[in-house]
Amino acid sequence: MPIYQVIYRDGLLTNAQRDEIAAEITRLHTTATAAPALFVNVVFNIVADAHVYTAGKPSKMSFIIGEIRDGRPLDVRQELLTALSALWVRVTGHPESQLLVGLRENDPANAMELGLILPAAGQEAAWFQEHHERLAALGVR
Amino acid sequence: MPIYQVIYRDGLLTNAQRDEIAAEITRLHTTATAAPALFVNVVFNIVADAHVYTAGKPSKMSFIIGEIRDGRPLDVRQELLTALSALWVRVTGHPESQLLVGLRENDPANAMELGLILPAAGQEAAWFQEHHERLAALGVR
Amino acid sequence: MPIYQVIYRDGLLTNAQRDEIAAEITRLHTTATAAPALFVNVVFNIVADAHVYTAGKPSKMSFIIGEIRDGRPLDVRQELLTALSALWVRVTGHPESQLLVGLRENDPANAMELGLILPAAGQEAAWFQEHHERLAALGVR
Repeated sequence: MPIYQVIYRDGLLTNAQRDEIAAEITRLHTTATAAPALFVNVVFNIVADAHVYTAGKPSKMSFIIGEIRDGRPLDVRQELLTALSALWVRVTGHPESQLLVGLRENDPANAMELGLILPAAGQEAAWFQEHHERLAALGVR
Repeated sequence: MPIYQVIYRDGLLTNAQRDEIAAEITRLHTTATAAPALFVNVVFNIVADAHVYTAGKPSKMSFIIGEIRDGRPLDVRQELLTALSALWVRVTGHPESQLLVGLRENDPANAMELGLILPAAGQEAAWFQEHHERLAALGVR
Repeated sequence: MPIYQVIYRDGLLTNAQRDEIAAEITRLHTTATAAPALFVNVVFNIVADAHVYTAGKPSKMSFIIGEIRDGRPLDVRQELLTALSALWVRVTGHPESQLLVGLRENDPANAMELGLILPAAGQEAAWFQEHHERLAALGVR
């Protein structure tokens, strides 16, 4: 974690926009939380045309849903929401009214990467030190 | 929020059924919670044939997963589950045994639409009033 | 519940690997939790090529995200994470560094299958007994 899922209608993003959004989400998340970039995953889910509805009618909504480790202060989470929303508008040119950004908080004890249970938010440095040899063997850091 | 994700196998719904399900989920959610229809998003995710398994074997299960703002009473949530299940059976003609309906509760402070942090459940009217000018400028209400 | 979502890049799994992963996730979950296999759903979501990024760059990450009923002890959850990670490496031959496994805990009172609210973790036997007639009519058990 985090895993950011970007849900968007087919054809709505160019490859270059997708690349930029992924890079920027990663930059914004690591800046806001001090988490290592290595932990930041972004998955783009394409939805078929006319498969998104708002208020009961087909709509042009896109969604950025980030599943993050819990323990981040409210102001950090809300600054992140604001930055993600602004990023989307800037890169896509779509209006802010066609985007929902959400965060879902999860216990890092419920997640494993590289065969290792994730550290609590803020405990990354100790975790990298503790697992130094294994991470090196996996080609990480 | 809410975001309702409807996960179903390719070819299982006609366009008309999809339209009706989206309209009905919206109606059921707004009736149960008094949330404005504007907040209700429904996303249909098509799963490839033979990509859904139950009890370890390919199955015909469909899924409706609603991510809603927290703070809704238990009876409201469970009446909503019952109504969503009945809706699906009525529109699709599929048996109730081929559907899972779930709700996931999330803190509205973790979500942003229209560039605004969402109101707590029940605080919608004050929120619309507070952000009246911005919403009008975005063409909302 | 549970619903396990396996998110992987197009072309990364054969049909036989998918079948084996679904069967093994079901076996591992029922072994770890004593939940009935009937409750275990596995959905495979294919992501388009170059639609997954890690650290801001396209990556080969896959994801197994299980949404489970809450109330499972920490050691049960973490043994499950370890077993799921090992399963993936064994069946796919991919390195452990290209997998994230996560669990998301949810209140069973927020989920309905077969038209019935799910039992709390550990209360399955009483639930099957209570709903015996309805389940039999649906062809379950």
